[in-house]
Amino acid sequence: MADRIHNFSAGPARLPAEVIDEARDGLLSLADTGIGILEHTHRGLPYRSVYEETVADVRDIGGISDDYEVLFLSGGASSQFHMVPMNFLDADSVADYVITGPWSKKALAEAKAVGRVHVAASTETTGFSTLPQAYNVSVNSAYLHYTSNDTICGTQFFDVPQVGEIQLVCDACSDLFSRTLDVSRFAVLYASAQKNLGPAGVTLVIVRRDLIERGRTDLPSMLQYRSHAQASSAFNTPPVFSIYVVGLMLKWIRRIGGLPALEERNRVKAETLYHCLDSSYLFSSPVEPQCRSMMNVIFSAGDKQLDSQFVSAAEKEGLIGLAGHRSAGGMRASIYNGMTLSGVQRLTEFINWFESSNAGEF
Amino acid sequence: MADRIHNFSAGPARLPAEVIDEARDGLLSLADTGIGILEHTHRGLPYRSVYEETVADVRDIGGISDDYEVLFLSGGASSQFHMVPMNFLDADSVADYVITGPWSKKALAEAKAVGRVHVAASTETTGFSTLPQAYNVSVNSAYLHYTSNDTICGTQFFDVPQVGEIQLVCDACSDLFSRTLDVSRFAVLYASAQKNLGPAGVTLVIVRRDLIERGRTDLPSMLQYRSHAQASSAFNTPPVFSIYVVGLMLKWIRRIGGLPALEERNRVKAETLYHCLDSSYLFSSPVEPQCRSMMNVIFSAGDKQLDSQFVSAAEKEGLIGLAGHRSAGGMRASIYNGMTLSGVQRLTEFINWFESSNAGEF
Repeated sequence: MADRIHNFSAGPARLPAEVIDEARDGLLSLADTGIGILEHTHRGLPYRSVYEETVADVRDIGGISDDYEVLFLSGGASSQFHMVPMNFLDADSVADYVITGPWSKKALAEAKAVGRVHVAASTETTGFSTLPQAYNVSVNSAYLHYTSNDTICGTQFFDVPQVGEIQLVCDACSDLFSRTLDVSRFAVLYASAQKNLGPAGVTLVIVRRDLIERGRTDLPSMLQYRSHAQASSAFNTPPVFSIYVVGLMLKWIRRIGGLPALEERNRVKAETLYHCLDSSYLFSSPVEPQCRSMMNVIFSAGDKQLDSQFVSAAEKEGLIGLAGHRSAGGMRASIYNGMTLSGVQRLTEFINWFESSNAGEF
Repeated sequence: MADRIHNFSAGPARLPAEVIDEARDGLLSLADTGIGILEHTHRGLPYRSVYEETVADVRDIGGISDDYEVLFLSGGASSQFHMVPMNFLDADSVADYVITGPWSKKALAEAKAVGRVHVAASTETTGFSTLPQAYNVSVNSAYLHYTSNDTICGTQFFDVPQVGEIQLVCDACSDLFSRTLDVSRFAVLYASAQKNLGPAGVTLVIVRRDLIERGRTDLPSMLQYRSHAQASSAFNTPPVFSIYVVGLMLKWIRRIGGLPALEERNRVKAETLYHCLDSSYLFSSPVEPQCRSMMNVIFSAGDKQLDSQFVSAAEKEGLIGLAGHRSAGGMRASIYNGMTLSGVQRLTEFINWFESSNAGEF
């Protein structure tokens, strides 16, 4: 049955079958310990080896230098929305935010509860169908925060915003480790795992070490990056299983050729789908071509009833999770690392079939 | 191999074999959806059903009324150390803390970063080998916080502290759902799952609804109980898999007869082990008999080298995780819900064997 189903959910999302098989083995016994991954103490050597190997793989595959801490935190990427300003924003500085969709608006709203914020750019007047061309950055900017890929609006930054020396903080939840990236451009990069890197329950946070040391010290320990860095992400009991599956995903990424090969694979998937939509007379993408996300492909027939018919008919064919975000409507095909090209091709075949079988109605 | 190994880790800890088997099935396909539990969107019906059933089981098995919210949060129980005072402590009130070991000291330290605190009782002068007899509670107390079971010192409260009308907040990480409990006595009860309820990565938080409504509104959303209550624990992407396994554990608890049967089972396990220690001339428990934890049995030969020999020899026999906490030394046998009576009996046999085989040395 699983072979017939193609899951286009926006996250948690499809994972490679091999990763699932390995995770099932790990539940019985981690390596040859005779104890499953859920039951190992996080203070013992078997789990510590998993953790250290996973951090080493993040560094190696992602090209991340020792100037950065690689942290695995719980609390979701949503906790980064307040942890970033709590640690790095003080009474003398302002946090700049780039608003390109609902997710960056959320990040801005949470920072407002912490300190002074400023909108450095917004594409709201375009309905978030494009990305900013210029940034109005504060003089005393603590950092500039942006969302590299908006899962709801279907836009993606292919270049890092040009804002000079300002510290860049990036919510990369839906595209980190889906493509190559020059991490040295960033102060903080964070991504929850459940799009491209594993299951829900853990957030990968990559932070420059010098910033961690300069962060505020009067916060509760769990809210300081410092605590997690000093304790190698085990200040409290870490989300062991989620980290373990991220480790399996990283090994899968290495097997298929690392980030360059993965990026090419993801590019072909996205181009296949956008080409189909651009050739369609029924469906279209609302996003400007140069900003179109390789991860979340938004499309619509421009008619609520027809969109809804499409989603239902697709589901009957085993093409699952294609409804757009509840705030946006239409359709969304999330084609993260775990989605195969053959899954995308099944979708384009279905789009073509749906279009031709509805031809009489137009 | 797994049958030969008995895992006495303090958490993450042993889970019933049936629960592991069911979790392995769930990775392949949640019920008959054809999509594994890691890959289902948290907004879809299949996961929502898991969540709602799990909350209903918490209520039903735990005897928890609609006056309480049942929340599944990420961030670990350690995040409750700051969330409780952030939500419920204001400029006019003081938070009372009962200090019975390292965990309650940690809770106190985190609350200090948030507001005014007061130690209502401490057993530190006894080396935490007993529990308080009386409490010196603040006039304007926001709440009294205590740790129902200290995993490091091996003490457990069998009765709720008698402090009149003061709101009780209980860190019940290591004994919630190991025995019957009158939840109506509490304002807040919280427990991370990895002792008695499942894997690491999720914390069960039971909070009185009227308190949630009175909680502070000027905090970042993720730090307000209100946000999580309004969103049925899906304000952000929840730790799906950990919640799922908690659901499997709850069904296992029901199958074996609910909390009364589980408590009896846990009592027999603990009595078996303490009886063995009390009959030993080599090993002893440092904890006063009326305070001895049914979850974490602390013992020692009173000699570092002998303790260390015991831990190594036990490990060779498949009795794993018996070293005491790194701050305490000695031995600790954690015998949570997932530990079987036969596992405890293997340990008592080994204690007896070790004692007789070392008899010549004393």
